[in-house]
Amino acid sequence: MEKIIECVPNFSEGRRQDVIDAIAESISSVENAHLLHVTSDADHNRTVMTFAGSPQAVMTAAYNAIKTASRLIDMRQHSGVHPRIGATDVVPFIPLDGATMEDCIQIARELGQKVGNELGLPVYLYEEATMRPERRSLATIRRGQFEGLVESITDPDRVPDYGKPEMGSAGAVTIGARKPLIAYNVYLTTDDVGIAQKIAQAIRGSSGGLTGVKALGLLVRGRAQVSMNLVDYENTPIYRVMELIRIEAQKYGVAIYESELIGLMPQDALIHSAGWYLQLPELDASSLLENRLKSISQSL
Amino acid sequence: MEKIIECVPNFSEGRRQDVIDAIAESISSVENAHLLHVTSDADHNRTVMTFAGSPQAVMTAAYNAIKTASRLIDMRQHSGVHPRIGATDVVPFIPLDGATMEDCIQIARELGQKVGNELGLPVYLYEEATMRPERRSLATIRRGQFEGLVESITDPDRVPDYGKPEMGSAGAVTIGARKPLIAYNVYLTTDDVGIAQKIAQAIRGSSGGLTGVKALGLLVRGRAQVSMNLVDYENTPIYRVMELIRIEAQKYGVAIYESELIGLMPQDALIHSAGWYLQLPELDASSLLENRLKSISQSL
Repeated sequence: MEKIIECVPNFSEGRRQDVIDAIAESISSVENAHLLHVTSDADHNRTVMTFAGSPQAVMTAAYNAIKTASRLIDMRQHSGVHPRIGATDVVPFIPLDGATMEDCIQIARELGQKVGNELGLPVYLYEEATMRPERRSLATIRRGQFEGLVESITDPDRVPDYGKPEMGSAGAVTIGARKPLIAYNVYLTTDDVGIAQKIAQAIRGSSGGLTGVKALGLLVRGRAQVSMNLVDYENTPIYRVMELIRIEAQKYGVAIYESELIGLMPQDALIHSAGWYLQLPELDASSLLENRLKSISQSL
Repeated sequence: MEKIIECVPNFSEGRRQDVIDAIAESISSVENAHLLHVTSDADHNRTVMTFAGSPQAVMTAAYNAIKTASRLIDMRQHSGVHPRIGATDVVPFIPLDGATMEDCIQIARELGQKVGNELGLPVYLYEEATMRPERRSLATIRRGQFEGLVESITDPDRVPDYGKPEMGSAGAVTIGARKPLIAYNVYLTTDDVGIAQKIAQAIRGSSGGLTGVKALGLLVRGRAQVSMNLVDYENTPIYRVMELIRIEAQKYGVAIYESELIGLMPQDALIHSAGWYLQLPELDASSLLENRLKSISQSL
């Protein structure tokens, strides 16, 4: 079976369409790399691209995208509500069909070395690809954001894993390997970002909430937003997060305005939540007609 | 593109596994007919099989299954809570990839004629395949059930469309063509079937409820059950039915115990409901990773 690896890089540009298009083009022009989805947000001033393909194609496409972003994005001019340290802020590789986490770790490290050597950018490895346990978490690497890292990059605990400890206009790149996650935002019926921050604190694993949830409170398009990564959606399913936010919000007399998916969602995550809301304990992937029909179209 | 047609026959046997297996075998042994799902219920004393394949294969498999069921099921000995008139109670054909409703109507009528002529069973055509508008609805054809039809089959308004007006041990067969539907049951936290019947009356289109819903109140496994066909799940989505049942049930101080899917569900129906519960207005099939990846696996 052919190995397929997914890559979901985040770029610090969510406003200039020509820049976003140029980065997308540097991915989609690589043979066997398939750009699946692009989401830009002007308030975050950030774009998330999802692509997948063979290991070699995915690595080449990621390298090209980093190169294009470093040329077109000047972090010294960048503002946005989402934390960031570089033009290409974070590049996670995720194992899909036939691929293993080991494959992704290897690609992340190989790409990190190449970006450090050839593009001269400071590179940090995170999550499964980390070489220093204290750098496993993205939040730790991003501490102080771009501006803070400009000051501290020569500190012994902050020197990059690859590349020079110098912050140019493109800032630093964080590259890693991880399991799939769901980027999920919930907008509240208030513009009080303090409420979103308090709810984020209540529901995230790092401060007593759900272990599979990373959360921040932000102000996006005039609404308080609980911005999340659901990093273990099998054990911490979306419905549980959603309903806990609803309950926490009641404390402040606010409700959920709407939700937003950034990028794509695995089918199983959707089935898990739909099964809870519809009280269908038996519901699984085999309950869907399309999944059963796959075998037919393959045999015809 | 190869035409694919789905067939979801219901047989009046939900208890004797050897009979169910024999019917399933008569379907799965046909080349290019693919048995996708089998659900049996002992209280309904009924089995729903879902299969799909090429038009010719699907018609042959349906014929074989009707023949097997008519040999092994004696309706004079049959009891169960679901209305029924024959060993093979109802045989709907549904157009899937590349197929049209016209294809299904043609198959239904051709099969009806063959079953009437060769097996000697009385056959009624329903829904899109009907030849008499007053027989479009299954409920009309099934009026009085097996026992009632034994008495009335020679009445001018009840003589079959094909076959002789004689009810043998296998009863009558209803064959038709229709759009996909979702067979969906909701169990209540009560054993009072009267409550399920009142809720069914409140929510179904024929008595003032939702147009896309057909509903009955039954007693299944000791619980009151609202047994439904959601015949237009695009315009009458599952969540709306579910939440309306929840509201109606409050009148009687009961709640929803759990739900049950009979057969399979189209992915879009699940997405529609999940999108409502999770308040994701943008959610659609293209939001799912697996759907985006299809294009890749086809190109690799």
